Amino acid sequence: MSAKKKVSGKKSGAGRGRKKTVSKPRTAKKASKIKRARRAKTARAAEHRASSSHKYYYFFGPGKAEGDASMKDLLGGKGANLAEMCNAGIPVPAGFTITTEVCNIYYEKNLEVPKAIDKELEKYVAVVEKATGKKFGDSEDPLLFSVRSGAKFSMPGMMDTILNLGLNEKTVEGLGKKTGNQRFALDNYRRFISMFGNVVLSIDKDLFESVITKKKSERRVRQDSSLQVNDLKDIIKKYKQIIRRKSGEAFPDDPFDQLRMARDAVFRSWNTPRAISYRRMNNIPSDLGTAVNIQAMVFGNMGNKSGTGVGFTRNPSTGDKEFYGEYLVNAQGEDVVAGLRTPQPIEQLADEMPQVYKQLKTITSRLETHYRDLQDFEFTVQEGELYMLQTRNGKRTVQAAIKIAVDMVKEKLIAKEEAIMRIEPKQLDQMLHPSIDPKASFEVIARGLPASPGAASGKVYFTADDVVRHGNNHPAILVREETNPDDIEGMNVAVGILTARGGMTSHAAVVARGMGKCCVSGAEAIRVNAAKKRFQVGKLVIKEGETITINGSNGDIILGEVPTIEPELSGEFAEFMDWADGIRKLGVRTNADTPRDAQKAIKFGAEGIGLCRTEHMFFAEDRIPIVREMILADSTEERQAALDRLLNFQKKDFKKIFDVMGGLPVTIRTLDPPLHEFLPRRAEIEEKIETLDRKSDEYEEDLERLKKVLRRIDELSELNPMLGHRGCRLGIVYPEITEMQTRAILEATCELLKDKKQVRPEIMIPLVGHVNEFKNQKEVIDRIANEVLHRKKIKKLEYLVGTMIEIPRAALTADEVATEAQFFSFGTNDLTQMAMGFSRDDAGKFLNYYISEGILPFDPFVKIDETGVGQLIQMGKEKGKQARPDLKVGICGEHGGNPESIHFCHRIGLDYVSCSPYRVPIARLAAAQAALTENDSAERE
Amino acid sequence: MSAKKKVSGKKSGAGRGRKKTVSKPRTAKKASKIKRARRAKTARAAEHRASSSHKYYYFFGPGKAEGDASMKDLLGGKGANLAEMCNAGIPVPAGFTITTEVCNIYYEKNLEVPKAIDKELEKYVAVVEKATGKKFGDSEDPLLFSVRSGAKFSMPGMMDTILNLGLNEKTVEGLGKKTGNQRFALDNYRRFISMFGNVVLSIDKDLFESVITKKKSERRVRQDSSLQVNDLKDIIKKYKQIIRRKSGEAFPDDPFDQLRMARDAVFRSWNTPRAISYRRMNNIPSDLGTAVNIQAMVFGNMGNKSGTGVGFTRNPSTGDKEFYGEYLVNAQGEDVVAGLRTPQPIEQLADEMPQVYKQLKTITSRLETHYRDLQDFEFTVQEGELYMLQTRNGKRTVQAAIKIAVDMVKEKLIAKEEAIMRIEPKQLDQMLHPSIDPKASFEVIARGLPASPGAASGKVYFTADDVVRHGNNHPAILVREETNPDDIEGMNVAVGILTARGGMTSHAAVVARGMGKCCVSGAEAIRVNAAKKRFQVGKLVIKEGETITINGSNGDIILGEVPTIEPELSGEFAEFMDWADGIRKLGVRTNADTPRDAQKAIKFGAEGIGLCRTEHMFFAEDRIPIVREMILADSTEERQAALDRLLNFQKKDFKKIFDVMGGLPVTIRTLDPPLHEFLPRRAEIEEKIETLDRKSDEYEEDLERLKKVLRRIDELSELNPMLGHRGCRLGIVYPEITEMQTRAILEATCELLKDKKQVRPEIMIPLVGHVNEFKNQKEVIDRIANEVLHRKKIKKLEYLVGTMIEIPRAALTADEVATEAQFFSFGTNDLTQMAMGFSRDDAGKFLNYYISEGILPFDPFVKIDETGVGQLIQMGKEKGKQARPDLKVGICGEHGGNPESIHFCHRIGLDYVSCSPYRVPIARLAAAQAALTENDSAERE
Repeated sequence: MSAKKKVSGKKSGAGRGRKKTVSKPRTAKKASKIKRARRAKTARAAEHRASSSHKYYYFFGPGKAEGDASMKDLLGGKGANLAEMCNAGIPVPAGFTITTEVCNIYYEKNLEVPKAIDKELEKYVAVVEKATGKKFGDSEDPLLFSVRSGAKFSMPGMMDTILNLGLNEKTVEGLGKKTGNQRFALDNYRRFISMFGNVVLSIDKDLFESVITKKKSERRVRQDSSLQVNDLKDIIKKYKQIIRRKSGEAFPDDPFDQLRMARDAVFRSWNTPRAISYRRMNNIPSDLGTAVNIQAMVFGNMGNKSGTGVGFTRNPSTGDKEFYGEYLVNAQGEDVVAGLRTPQPIEQLADEMPQVYKQLKTITSRLETHYRDLQDFEFTVQEGELYMLQTRNGKRTVQAAIKIAVDMVKEKLIAKEEAIMRIEPKQLDQMLHPSIDPKASFEVIARGLPASPGAASGKVYFTADDVVRHGNNHPAILVREETNPDDIEGMNVAVGILTARGGMTSHAAVVARGMGKCCVSGAEAIRVNAAKKRFQVGKLVIKEGETITINGSNGDIILGEVPTIEPELSGEFAEFMDWADGIRKLGVRTNADTPRDAQKAIKFGAEGIGLCRTEHMFFAEDRIPIVREMILADSTEERQAALDRLLNFQKKDFKKIFDVMGGLPVTIRTLDPPLHEFLPRRAEIEEKIETLDRKSDEYEEDLERLKKVLRRIDELSELNPMLGHRGCRLGIVYPEITEMQTRAILEATCELLKDKKQVRPEIMIPLVGHVNEFKNQKEVIDRIANEVLHRKKIKKLEYLVGTMIEIPRAALTADEVATEAQFFSFGTNDLTQMAMGFSRDDAGKFLNYYISEGILPFDPFVKIDETGVGQLIQMGKEKGKQARPDLKVGICGEHGGNPESIHFCHRIGLDYVSCSPYRVPIARLAAAQAALTENDSAERE
Repeated sequence: MSAKKKVSGKKSGAGRGRKKTVSKPRTAKKASKIKRARRAKTARAAEHRASSSHKYYYFFGPGKAEGDASMKDLLGGKGANLAEMCNAGIPVPAGFTITTEVCNIYYEKNLEVPKAIDKELEKYVAVVEKATGKKFGDSEDPLLFSVRSGAKFSMPGMMDTILNLGLNEKTVEGLGKKTGNQRFALDNYRRFISMFGNVVLSIDKDLFESVITKKKSERRVRQDSSLQVNDLKDIIKKYKQIIRRKSGEAFPDDPFDQLRMARDAVFRSWNTPRAISYRRMNNIPSDLGTAVNIQAMVFGNMGNKSGTGVGFTRNPSTGDKEFYGEYLVNAQGEDVVAGLRTPQPIEQLADEMPQVYKQLKTITSRLETHYRDLQDFEFTVQEGELYMLQTRNGKRTVQAAIKIAVDMVKEKLIAKEEAIMRIEPKQLDQMLHPSIDPKASFEVIARGLPASPGAASGKVYFTADDVVRHGNNHPAILVREETNPDDIEGMNVAVGILTARGGMTSHAAVVARGMGKCCVSGAEAIRVNAAKKRFQVGKLVIKEGETITINGSNGDIILGEVPTIEPELSGEFAEFMDWADGIRKLGVRTNADTPRDAQKAIKFGAEGIGLCRTEHMFFAEDRIPIVREMILADSTEERQAALDRLLNFQKKDFKKIFDVMGGLPVTIRTLDPPLHEFLPRRAEIEEKIETLDRKSDEYEEDLERLKKVLRRIDELSELNPMLGHRGCRLGIVYPEITEMQTRAILEATCELLKDKKQVRPEIMIPLVGHVNEFKNQKEVIDRIANEVLHRKKIKKLEYLVGTMIEIPRAALTADEVATEAQFFSFGTNDLTQMAMGFSRDDAGKFLNYYISEGILPFDPFVKIDETGVGQLIQMGKEKGKQARPDLKVGICGEHGGNPESIHFCHRIGLDYVSCSPYRVPIARLAAAQAALTENDSAERE
């Protein structure tokens, strides 16, 4: 349908036809029909754009419009919705939209609108004149305009509204006469001049404000509304002087000059630094451009029968189905924003203007049914007449979003599938962690990166040891310059982590997210002095034991304790997630190293453990000395003795975890990090040597012992530990380590089996690059398994042995590896490091630059680099399944909790993703959406 | 042809038929015919094996044999050649060979030869009895045997010969009577007992030796031959006592027991630790097994008409065409080996036994023609009768190998192609470096790994700075615990490098090979004390300035100066390499960073530079301070100022290199290593701070300056520098570096072009992982190029911009990268590191273990891992050429000089390989062999 046709078809009553569509309820069953209809609509819009590149203006007015809701690309969200409302017969002041194409042309033509296009402006003004019966620039009954920007996606940072455009010395007189209210007219005029001066001519608002302030103090009044006609005239005169002084030119009297200047200002606002950076952060393309909406003014400030307000069709905080909003009598929109007067709850409108209230309820409810979503609307009442100024899908909390989606399914407004598609998986994070009580007031002393969501208060400590020492008595927050693997145990005990250095993918951030613990990283304003046990923010010094609160959801660092609230998972949440589970095909497991994590993940719906890192169990205070004994051992015998002691610890850990998981699969990775990570730092030992008592009898012995540690540290130190002696390379050179771990896993299994419990252990060999490495370790595992079975007198024991695919070569030779391995789990963190040659610990030096300069489109540690790393994953999966059709394939890197990466995993046919406990619901939802998206594209083809 | 048929066909005179084949000269033109014939022969042999699994014994004797030279798999090299000689009518003592199959059965059956097979032994003994007219175990005219092992490939570590088998108290009498020489008979008997005792019963040789020594001193004689009959009888008695005492059993009198025991000892010798490790080192499969050759004894010790000798048909050291060898009158083979008597040159035989000499010359010359290769033969003369005991292709120096190959082509014995296939490319290394004068005598004080071939003498220094300071005055050897990139300049000035740590692929080894400088690495016996400027070997202390000699070809460390000889490249060498060049399809370039290297590479036949690392130019003494200024710069301006000064240095370097290369392509890589490699080490600065003069006026200033360096060192330090801020990531974040380098390259080019010289620069961007990185750097290069052209007033300048493919992602997305890049060069070192997840600097901890345990079949840093890394290379090449058909693709990692990897590069269709100058001839030869191998397989299909 071309635009022309639509305009010409207006006689046939678009209103009626639309009405039917709007009021028609859409049941869940009809969802696919609706989808088809929508697609047809989108196709029409595209066709339309293609065939009418000459059409740059779109009229809308009561009962009819040239555009519709599908044309957001061209008309922006606001313009498209205004058109849609008109078509639906909803009262909207007449106006027109200048398309986003004109914005792009404006930039192409060096900030100028070509004459041919510009000329049409007057034509469309005339159409609005006709619709309203007023004349633009008329001295009797002047038509005034509001001018607003409106891009496809709502974008803060762009131009807001200019009201009352068209006023000048002549029309202001006319307005006064026509309304019989000269003060009203002058007040509009002075608002217009300052808005125009500020928004179009970039003159500081305060200059205008101070004129009024001065006038009010002269007149000894407190409210603007107390100023009289002469005061306003004086103010207007002064405003115009400011304009001339600051812009070098007189305030434009010609209404068309005003209109063109405002239009261009809207176009320019598309490229303010704030708008650009917003777009970059939100992945909005820069070539969309903004539309300009030019709409006849209606006045909420024409007396007590007038007013203006905003509202939601449901409560956007809770999702409850209640009419929600507020309004101001005798006011223009900006008064609501300015906050000088307190608006009234919308229910009062029912008493004050019952007719209007009823109409508003009817209209907005129709809008909700039409858009099948929560509406956020603006309205103005002019002398008892209701006008809708805007409607759009309302922003809401994730709690509300879920409740609304679930309710709408029950109301048969939308299908379950659509409900699932409505929630941005990442948003779920908000509701799963404790958050700062919204009622609390507090002082933010600094801000860092929101590295891991949630909020926590606690006493600060500056070493992991101190946290471990005190953290069991009271909540402790670990504050470090940056963390390293030595700090794991401290991080585990702490309620939150704060670092001065490191980005969103630093050690602290990654580990904290894995633990579901809040973390603020890279707070560059804080200076940490661990030696003196304190940190500073400017001149403020916070010492060990003082209490702070950190908010990992927004990066706030707050002095003192702030109350937090625990998340409550509603019944709707459970219902919603059930639907998602019914739709998704991908399994969702969790990365969990402790029974506590496992418990949490189960609560969040995990279907097993996809990665249990045994090394985290090595860092506990009672174990690390034994681990060090093992590393310092001079002989296999000594090493074995230490391992024998570790065995009991590990076995206990595994039993607890198996027990929590109650028969769900548990994938346990054998020891992975290089041994030097378990040793103390060189400096620490050097200090110990210096402080040894030289007179002590044990001096020589102690010195020798410490020197041995130093030597071992040197022996084990590596230039590139990431590519060094770790992963299965440890288990191969020191088979006794793998033996101990296997024994711990399988003895734990046997003991639980004897208690009639279900256990499904899966042993995972890390860092395999060659099938022979896997064979070597599998031989050890099978041998020990037989031994354990025999000793425990168990006949049969089912366990799988698989591998992590995290070395490119493993993916390249997955067919060989799969001849031996029973499952693959892609370790996408390391795979990304090696495939792209990025050390995550060091990439900060260039990765941020790469992303900000567009050299990389996104951070590959957050979202899978499908083009490169993704190829390896796909290849690995395909070669693997070729060699062993029943091979289980999943991923367990950080990407397992990233919705876009989950889509990728679904698309290439993996069996499951595994992510940290807090991300399990996100993964479940993303997996369901991936399945729906696929159905959708399949249907389209 | 089945074995049976052959045996039955003996009447038809195999001798005659063979003779014809042997004497027929093979011209080069007929090479392919010969090849076909050989293939047919191989096929026959295989068929034969298949059809006659029941045949375990192969007779050979004068004029006829059941086997032939094609049957090395079954008969071993020795057995097959003995058969071949018999068939050719050459006089060989009769005997038979027990096949390698029996060896394998012996192992399968738990070290026992099955009865059915064992029984046949007697049958074949009987055949030999018939052929010789003697009887095994006979008291009148006993048949004696020699028993020798003989595998398909000659293998040290396996059993040597047992002579005189079959003697006992009875037969020794008979032998004495028959020869009329009781002393001779007894001497043979006593030799036999001790050999048997040692070889079969594993009794220490010295026990036997001391009996003789004692007897000689009793008798006051010095020579064994001076012992008389009674002495020998006494010795024999004592020997037998030793045997009984040590083995617990009497010496076996039964000749068949002797024979079986000797046979089994041969089989067992296949699996001695030395044999196993030799096989592993030489990639010889373990399931080949060894054959046993049982041959009638002939006696070179029957008086002055008897003798024994060895010889070569040409000089194996020089390749000269001269009859070469030595012999001993009245001796058995072991006397030659024992070295108690000095053998005579073979020419003397012409005087002493002219008939024998003439016959020997004729026979060996026929053998050479028959085998078309240098023969290494053994013979015995028994009372004027000549017997050939062995012939095989002789080992030779590489110089000789080349001369012989070239001569044989000229003699039309072999085709050029065959000559090319005859030389092991790796051997060429020997002749391209200086070597220790073979006439010199010296004392080896320790031994390390032969990390980079060649030999050099010089004074030792313990820091790179000291080498730089003194190395221009006299030859200097850099001695370090291990080297690092800071040492480059020192390594460059040194004549050789010695390190106490690090393997064949350590920094020292890699850089030294690249420089063609000799290096001994990982000499664990030396303890380096750099602070005290000395190293120790045991109690021996070598101080700075003392002279040592190192031999990088075998790992020797020698005290004092030893004369070395410079390699001389013969005319044959040039001719030979010309032939190779005519055959090969791969281009061969060199990795060269200096004009000197470039010069050397040109001399060795390089066709361009495939990798010129600009960073090595940064380390020179006059430049490193400027480089550091650049790194320490606080602003882009400061950095630019330092770069401006570096520009002139770089330009000069490039001009010289371009000039040397005279119009051949020169691929220059922009800066690659992380900046911290250019900074001094932390400890160095800390020491400087400590030694600052606190009273000096500049103290504060100096301190601040040094502290800044420390801060920068900390800022730049990386956990995994290999995957950190390096390669193009530097040029992207600091474009001014790429700008400077481009300017230096292109200004140098323009200036030479103005001098009418030819220059073909190719600029290579390192470490690209994403096409956008390449685009970014190419934009910089093209912009600067235009600028230079404009300023130098040059109209057109041809240069290519390409990239190193060394990150797996680059290979995976090569189609994208190739849309921008004009050439690819695979950096196989880093590609191997990343694809396999091995840090080369750290892999020592497990890689050696991996290789020795067979987890990896070979060191992937030496030879391309075709299965894994090779996939990426092939994929990168194919995707690249798909996107840009004229894309030039080569490799420039260390593998570029590894023959097997060169075969791979040829096979997948790369355009060139690039390697260090000294490896250029190796690469040329390997490339030619790759082309021939391909033709060969193509022909076969």
